[in-house]
Amino acid sequence: MPEPKRLIVNVFEMACVSHITHGLWRLPDNNRHRFAELSYWTELAQLAEQGGLDGIFLADVVGAYDTFRGGPETAIREGLQIPNLDPLLVIPAMATVTQHLGFGVTFSTTYEPPFAFARRMSTLDALTGGRVGWNIVTSYLSNAARNFGLEDQIPHDERYQIADEYLDVLYKLWEGSWDDDAVVNDPVAGIYSDPAKVHAINHVGKHFTVAGPHLVAPTPQRVPLLFQATGSPAGIAFAGKHSEVVFTGGRTVEDFQSNANRMRDAAESQGRERGDVKFVVQAGVIVGRTESEVADKERLFQEYSSLDGVLAHSGFPFDITAYPHDSLVSDAIADAGLPAEHPVAKRFAEGATIGQALEELRHQRHDRFYVAGTPKVVADEIEKWLDEDGIDGINLRQYHSYDTVRDFVELVVPELRRRGRIREEYTPGETLRERYFGASRLPERHPAARYRGGKNL
Amino acid sequence: MPEPKRLIVNVFEMACVSHITHGLWRLPDNNRHRFAELSYWTELAQLAEQGGLDGIFLADVVGAYDTFRGGPETAIREGLQIPNLDPLLVIPAMATVTQHLGFGVTFSTTYEPPFAFARRMSTLDALTGGRVGWNIVTSYLSNAARNFGLEDQIPHDERYQIADEYLDVLYKLWEGSWDDDAVVNDPVAGIYSDPAKVHAINHVGKHFTVAGPHLVAPTPQRVPLLFQATGSPAGIAFAGKHSEVVFTGGRTVEDFQSNANRMRDAAESQGRERGDVKFVVQAGVIVGRTESEVADKERLFQEYSSLDGVLAHSGFPFDITAYPHDSLVSDAIADAGLPAEHPVAKRFAEGATIGQALEELRHQRHDRFYVAGTPKVVADEIEKWLDEDGIDGINLRQYHSYDTVRDFVELVVPELRRRGRIREEYTPGETLRERYFGASRLPERHPAARYRGGKNL
Repeated sequence: MPEPKRLIVNVFEMACVSHITHGLWRLPDNNRHRFAELSYWTELAQLAEQGGLDGIFLADVVGAYDTFRGGPETAIREGLQIPNLDPLLVIPAMATVTQHLGFGVTFSTTYEPPFAFARRMSTLDALTGGRVGWNIVTSYLSNAARNFGLEDQIPHDERYQIADEYLDVLYKLWEGSWDDDAVVNDPVAGIYSDPAKVHAINHVGKHFTVAGPHLVAPTPQRVPLLFQATGSPAGIAFAGKHSEVVFTGGRTVEDFQSNANRMRDAAESQGRERGDVKFVVQAGVIVGRTESEVADKERLFQEYSSLDGVLAHSGFPFDITAYPHDSLVSDAIADAGLPAEHPVAKRFAEGATIGQALEELRHQRHDRFYVAGTPKVVADEIEKWLDEDGIDGINLRQYHSYDTVRDFVELVVPELRRRGRIREEYTPGETLRERYFGASRLPERHPAARYRGGKNL
Repeated sequence: MPEPKRLIVNVFEMACVSHITHGLWRLPDNNRHRFAELSYWTELAQLAEQGGLDGIFLADVVGAYDTFRGGPETAIREGLQIPNLDPLLVIPAMATVTQHLGFGVTFSTTYEPPFAFARRMSTLDALTGGRVGWNIVTSYLSNAARNFGLEDQIPHDERYQIADEYLDVLYKLWEGSWDDDAVVNDPVAGIYSDPAKVHAINHVGKHFTVAGPHLVAPTPQRVPLLFQATGSPAGIAFAGKHSEVVFTGGRTVEDFQSNANRMRDAAESQGRERGDVKFVVQAGVIVGRTESEVADKERLFQEYSSLDGVLAHSGFPFDITAYPHDSLVSDAIADAGLPAEHPVAKRFAEGATIGQALEELRHQRHDRFYVAGTPKVVADEIEKWLDEDGIDGINLRQYHSYDTVRDFVELVVPELRRRGRIREEYTPGETLRERYFGASRLPERHPAARYRGGKNL
């Protein structure tokens, strides 16, 4: 009998008050208002590591949500991802108090120079001993563009073209600039690094010109584990070429599987293997010792949920609250002058009314990967996600910080361990990529590998 | 009798093997090769805080020294500031294991967007509870420019013009964007921040266009304590307008004092007060329990010192080792086609020979603020620096990590405490600016203050 498939578990986080479970920061004893304190992060990290989880996955935005009702007011009132902190800077604090926990961090390829970002990620990879991953995004907020000197966003597909060159620069710096044995550290000979093994990259491209050499000596993973959250055609092609872990979702199993298959196809078409891409989904897990405890939690979360927060976050191009509750979502879409296949339509079942849509939004249970129940029920459902749906892991949505993580650690982890779905202990010194793929470095078939040893620069 | 003037003591650091004491990384038990490990920083920070020091001051460069002998080879061999790490990212680790220690970090205004940097510094100010300072630089390495898409450096004075607008953007974000009482954190009313008290900045200037609002809510200092290392006329004018602590040096007392006076004049001409600028000098302190222990240390450091490292770092526009030792530095300068008043000339005494210059460089004792002796001798000298020369503090040059700091803490601090020159204990909760100037926020006469309350945006 083969070993059961293991579940990857990351805590889904963001350095802000209201990340995705809008309104719930108001729950009693929620610590979310402490997001700007170091101790918030060190406590969370220790809790996650004591519980045997894989990592903390940090979302990010570099602008405000300012389209709902014509401005950022709702986002500001709700603490909806503003104020926030730079997520790169909470990682060293969490790394200081842990040994094994991984860190995934979101950073956009659209607004900041690749040379500086390459150095920052290498710094994190060095300091954490190879425990970092990068969630590649191209940004989608118009306010973000205006914070960085642009009048509005760069069009979607062009952002991915820039991202593609951005990664090419990073690969040259991370894999090509320093040979594996460049650092000699020989006090007797007086040689710290061997100049013959450190290379300028002299990248000259359409969007970037970067001389090098890279400033950071080889780190455990060289390239941080490459995450990406995507679904669009340009995004899928990009993921097929570059990404190792796709963070995705889907209303239905079919949605998820068709997305996953398209990305695996894209990877194959780039000379990579289907297994080179793993899939982590955002999951909502509400667990209790009894059915009534579960029901109480669900009720409490629904009670505290803020529809305004959800709507301001959703980026709907119209105010859905302005339509009668018994009218159809599809009619509102048409009324707003949008095409019938607009993404908003796909978020709800066919024929959904405005009232149903609002209820679904408010409950924030709008996708396949949601379960509420006792540990046995939750574990049964997660096993289905793993074995039938084909996911590799979850980014755990936090309803309450730190109760959501504590509940998962105390109630779900033991049950999943009994079933062989979560390891009994960490492997000492393991890098994040080793944990996901068994090796610290990218395989030779990944495009980053072509620059190794200073080749093809 | 007035209280004696207190000494500010920072450890001068850089996340690299060979920062300024070239060759000394090879000393027995030196920990410099551990600069890319988290524990290097947490140990250093704890040592400094246990010893009652004020802070860790982190230098930085974003390129390689590549002019000496026509390339970066010497720098790479010597570990001369390459490889290195992003210094911003070691601060959260040090902050995690300390309560009072301050952190000064170098960042250049020339290559990265102000919106992102404003957020990073605010993040650090929040996470550290107001313990951060920023050493403002405009960068001087040609390789750095080429790492960020330029063909060569932007001319010196133009860099300062850019820096001036850069700071204006930062001030708007840091001081103007969020009112003091913008964060409400009221779970009952469901208001995290009050939208009426959060302002876009809509900066449109010659070099930058930035919408805002700032993404980080008010932090203890708002503006990190503003350090600057400078001496040029453009630098002095800039310091007079913006800087609170100038990091400077000087071959002689007269050099130091004339520099300091020019900066105080510049501050006054900008409507600030002469006392609004403090002066911290780079100092070499070699201390031992006996004279012979001191002599042994000096001899050891000179033995391990690397002249090649010093020269590659010096940025001399010619190879000083190529001239006969008995010829004059001034002749070499003329021979290299440089003006007689070239900065190189000012580094040495008038009439110095090449041999004398090389010896002085190798010994790395080329300025006024160097002392070697027993604790009493050292303390006497430091009191002179404070009372006669007029410095406010020192950035302690490390010859050996961690022995230099350990020696200072064990031998010099107790002696200076006896003389009332170093506080007996930290003031709990004190911000870095409070420690230097008695208040967490900049005074009203500083140009950053004009944006408070969203005014003048």
